[in-house]
Amino acid sequence: MTAAERWAERSLGYRFRDAGLLGQALTHRSAGRPHNERLEFLGDALLGAVIASCLFERLPAAREGTLTRYRALLVRRDSLAELAAEIGLGEQLRMGGGELGSGGRQRRSTLADALEAVIGAVFLDGGFAAVERVLRRLYAGRLAALPPEAALRDAKTALQEALQARGLGLPEYRLLGSSGPPHAQRFEASCVIAELGIETTASGSSRQRAEQGAAALALAQLPDGSR
Amino acid sequence: MTAAERWAERSLGYRFRDAGLLGQALTHRSAGRPHNERLEFLGDALLGAVIASCLFERLPAAREGTLTRYRALLVRRDSLAELAAEIGLGEQLRMGGGELGSGGRQRRSTLADALEAVIGAVFLDGGFAAVERVLRRLYAGRLAALPPEAALRDAKTALQEALQARGLGLPEYRLLGSSGPPHAQRFEASCVIAELGIETTASGSSRQRAEQGAAALALAQLPDGSR
Repeated sequence: MTAAERWAERSLGYRFRDAGLLGQALTHRSAGRPHNERLEFLGDALLGAVIASCLFERLPAAREGTLTRYRALLVRRDSLAELAAEIGLGEQLRMGGGELGSGGRQRRSTLADALEAVIGAVFLDGGFAAVERVLRRLYAGRLAALPPEAALRDAKTALQEALQARGLGLPEYRLLGSSGPPHAQRFEASCVIAELGIETTASGSSRQRAEQGAAALALAQLPDGSR
Repeated sequence: MTAAERWAERSLGYRFRDAGLLGQALTHRSAGRPHNERLEFLGDALLGAVIASCLFERLPAAREGTLTRYRALLVRRDSLAELAAEIGLGEQLRMGGGELGSGGRQRRSTLADALEAVIGAVFLDGGFAAVERVLRRLYAGRLAALPPEAALRDAKTALQEALQARGLGLPEYRLLGSSGPPHAQRFEASCVIAELGIETTASGSSRQRAEQGAAALALAQLPDGSR
């Protein structure tokens, strides 16, 4: 058994029948052909399907838009790169010298792409059921602790949607002032929902950030459940 | 057996164990709950995975970008709506009166969404293998007759890429003139690839359309295979 095969068994809980597929999935294009770009295409699609299926099952009352937002969160490049780093995928990568020298093993896009390629290789090697098992294991923690839905959108958008759902108008944002030297200015903004008697204020390093902060506070103050 | 079940067996080659899933997939939100929006989310993801897998297998030498473009072509709304119309899916839809009255059964987005929902229902009912069988059957003709890759991109982009692949520079576009009254103007443009001695001209209702036409003609005149 190669080191890569041992890694796959330990980190993915999967034993490859065809170790060549695993090798290809771990080969960055800088190391020559056959490299992992086609497998990445395949794995990306399988990942989307399996995560969709997991969310469908786990959130039986969620609407399509909610499911779509959670899926985007779980399959986005940053999440994949994090997962790849957690299982030490970077150490297993084969890459060319230039790529290695410039920190290729830690590059987020390289890690995310390679994890997708590994998923594609598992699919070719063991079919959909094998991909499902591997991904349910890799994503167990993230699926068990999904963030609150409101955290998935920017706060101003979330607040606007929550108010519309109650038949209320748009919130009003007011710039209350700014302070500090030009390179370290602070802005203070308020968010007013007159109909609900809510007024929140927050500060931030830009007007937009201050408004987002005020919106998040207002969101937390909305009465009852439809947030 | 309901009419919908007979339709599924005839058109998809699939017999549902749980006819309720099929019924839900065929229920537009205008007809009340449970409707097909969650199933559409699931089906969309499965469709992407199965088509990715079919293309991966069918185009063993294609690069990731090519595979991505073909997949986009096959799963886009228009392709789905066409497929749905071919198998008479619209006739099976349950929808509210207002939606029906405004031609809902023929609406392309409704048809595309419902086809995705049916795919989601097949997945829940029969698993990934069943979805694969259904989609390989539905897409058989389209997979067997994929358009040439160059037809997937706009002609100016395709031409630029083809020239770059040969180490050549950008083509030059020249506006040769325009004619006609303001509301029905025609533009004539040429595309020149000096290094290859190619010059094509085309006309169109805008400068951009004329240039696209000239680029398509030039693309067709490029010597040898790397188009």
